Amino acid sequence: MRIDGLQYCAWSETIFRQWRASGLDAVHVTIAYHENFRETVLNVEQWNRWFERHDDLILHGQTAADVALAHETQRTAVFFGFQNPSPIEDDIGLVEVWHKLGARFMQLSYNNQSLLATGCYESDDAGITRMGKAVIKEMNRVGLVVDMSHSADRSTIEAAEISARPIAITHANVYAWHPALRNKQDSVIRAVTDNGGMLGFSLYPHHLKNKSDCTLDDFCTMIADAVAKYGIAHFGIGSDLCQDQPDRIVEWMRVGRWTKDIDYGEGSADAPGFPTMPEWFRDNRDWPNLAQGLVAKGFTASEVNALLGGNWYRFFAENFTPQSGEAGI
Amino acid sequence: MRIDGLQYCAWSETIFRQWRASGLDAVHVTIAYHENFRETVLNVEQWNRWFERHDDLILHGQTAADVALAHETQRTAVFFGFQNPSPIEDDIGLVEVWHKLGARFMQLSYNNQSLLATGCYESDDAGITRMGKAVIKEMNRVGLVVDMSHSADRSTIEAAEISARPIAITHANVYAWHPALRNKQDSVIRAVTDNGGMLGFSLYPHHLKNKSDCTLDDFCTMIADAVAKYGIAHFGIGSDLCQDQPDRIVEWMRVGRWTKDIDYGEGSADAPGFPTMPEWFRDNRDWPNLAQGLVAKGFTASEVNALLGGNWYRFFAENFTPQSGEAGI
Repeated sequence: MRIDGLQYCAWSETIFRQWRASGLDAVHVTIAYHENFRETVLNVEQWNRWFERHDDLILHGQTAADVALAHETQRTAVFFGFQNPSPIEDDIGLVEVWHKLGARFMQLSYNNQSLLATGCYESDDAGITRMGKAVIKEMNRVGLVVDMSHSADRSTIEAAEISARPIAITHANVYAWHPALRNKQDSVIRAVTDNGGMLGFSLYPHHLKNKSDCTLDDFCTMIADAVAKYGIAHFGIGSDLCQDQPDRIVEWMRVGRWTKDIDYGEGSADAPGFPTMPEWFRDNRDWPNLAQGLVAKGFTASEVNALLGGNWYRFFAENFTPQSGEAGI
Repeated sequence: MRIDGLQYCAWSETIFRQWRASGLDAVHVTIAYHENFRETVLNVEQWNRWFERHDDLILHGQTAADVALAHETQRTAVFFGFQNPSPIEDDIGLVEVWHKLGARFMQLSYNNQSLLATGCYESDDAGITRMGKAVIKEMNRVGLVVDMSHSADRSTIEAAEISARPIAITHANVYAWHPALRNKQDSVIRAVTDNGGMLGFSLYPHHLKNKSDCTLDDFCTMIADAVAKYGIAHFGIGSDLCQDQPDRIVEWMRVGRWTKDIDYGEGSADAPGFPTMPEWFRDNRDWPNLAQGLVAKGFTASEVNALLGGNWYRFFAENFTPQSGEAGI
């Protein structure tokens, strides 16, 4: 099994073919950054057209069984997720509606304060809001995973504690390895992994030591250290790959419609666009390099399989279906 | 099996208990008359709350297997449908989105001209529109049944011919028995049944000979005549029951937001509200009377079972899932 815990590419047949050539059985794709309910439904409609047109390459993933089906039929299962709770607007009833439409991950905030939680770029973090607590309970009930990748520390720790089911940080790295605002402190990783959650290691250069110049060995050293400290079962890959996206998209991701000013996020006025990917992970063609890097670091074949897909597969199997006793959904 | 092919009640625990007491295993419920996409989603959310609160009485029906499950567990499976295509607005991509959310029937028009077809109250019927043809094809693909209960004759006949899968008239009676605008001419019933479709007999007084004074024997005579003429396999019940609804609802059904004037539909200025139900079918408690009436008319037990649920069950089993070869949906 090979599973990517998060991508936001400019999807195309070329990328779908690369997925398969790299042995990717499943990818969690972002279908909303700042989109409201109706706009996100339009993004689902676009995916439905791709599922219809490219049914030899991809299928709509809803349960872990779809990953196995994709593997058997040499395709890639695509799972929907949001990097912001904007698709549920102010309406908790949309949590179940979105699960029916295929959403499997939802971030409670994206950099900024949301109705549910604080984002990692805010100066103060007041933790999970009243609506946030109600929504986490509902997400637990239907099988929509709490993702705290872009949330602030206190909010993330509280979410891990409040949630009755494991939560995820689909795409981020270890702060102690590379102190970026988006990387996670020990206390955050502890809270998530102690509660059975997962972290997907990111290949986004701003999350990497020496950014675009990070070496594969450096990246695998971080993984080895995290595995030694927190246990291998809690880690996978969430590449955060934005393959083929034009730079206007990174501006949309950062600014949405919430400000008239430009916010450079992890970039800068000098380098406002997408950063250059490391030469050993240019895009979806380079998944085999990750396996080689992990083997070189001393991981066994079964450990490599766990890190590159097996752990996400187990997490998908346990967290995408309604809470036990909720058979009626 | 007992299945009602259409109801639009003021739903309540009382009604859900009556369904079960009357042995109803499935009911097709209207969740939209004039609602747009977002408004109809709100109606789904309301049903989701009922499914959660009353999971001992009802469940969300999506396939025929859910009818069997409801029967086994002594509950009623609720299937969603629209009496107007307003929930898809002008967006064919919403057909598949709605199927995912549970819609299983959609009328192509409701009394008036729609984007897809002509309604039965228009003076001229130009048949299925360009968008209508595209939408029928898409409905066939995903497993959303074309319902022409409130459509005009030519549009209905064309829909039956264009559709690659059987269509339905979920709630109407025979025009030759009672010449109401909403009842169906022989040519219409022929087109629908010749193509494998179904008609659900209505208990709405305006569709009945002598309206509220119609006798059970009269009603069962109509059924016996239709069965003799078109074959028993094509008929069920679609009671059109609006139990407990206040009169403002019949005004909403007729007028929606399309006119500032009052349109009395099948009523009149003297009698603008819901008509009084026949004394032998007051509401959901009286399903057993239908069985008795059919037995008195000479139908065998197996024929009664076919008419009161078995035929709809077969139709559900054949038409609610994606077209063969569309496994990817």
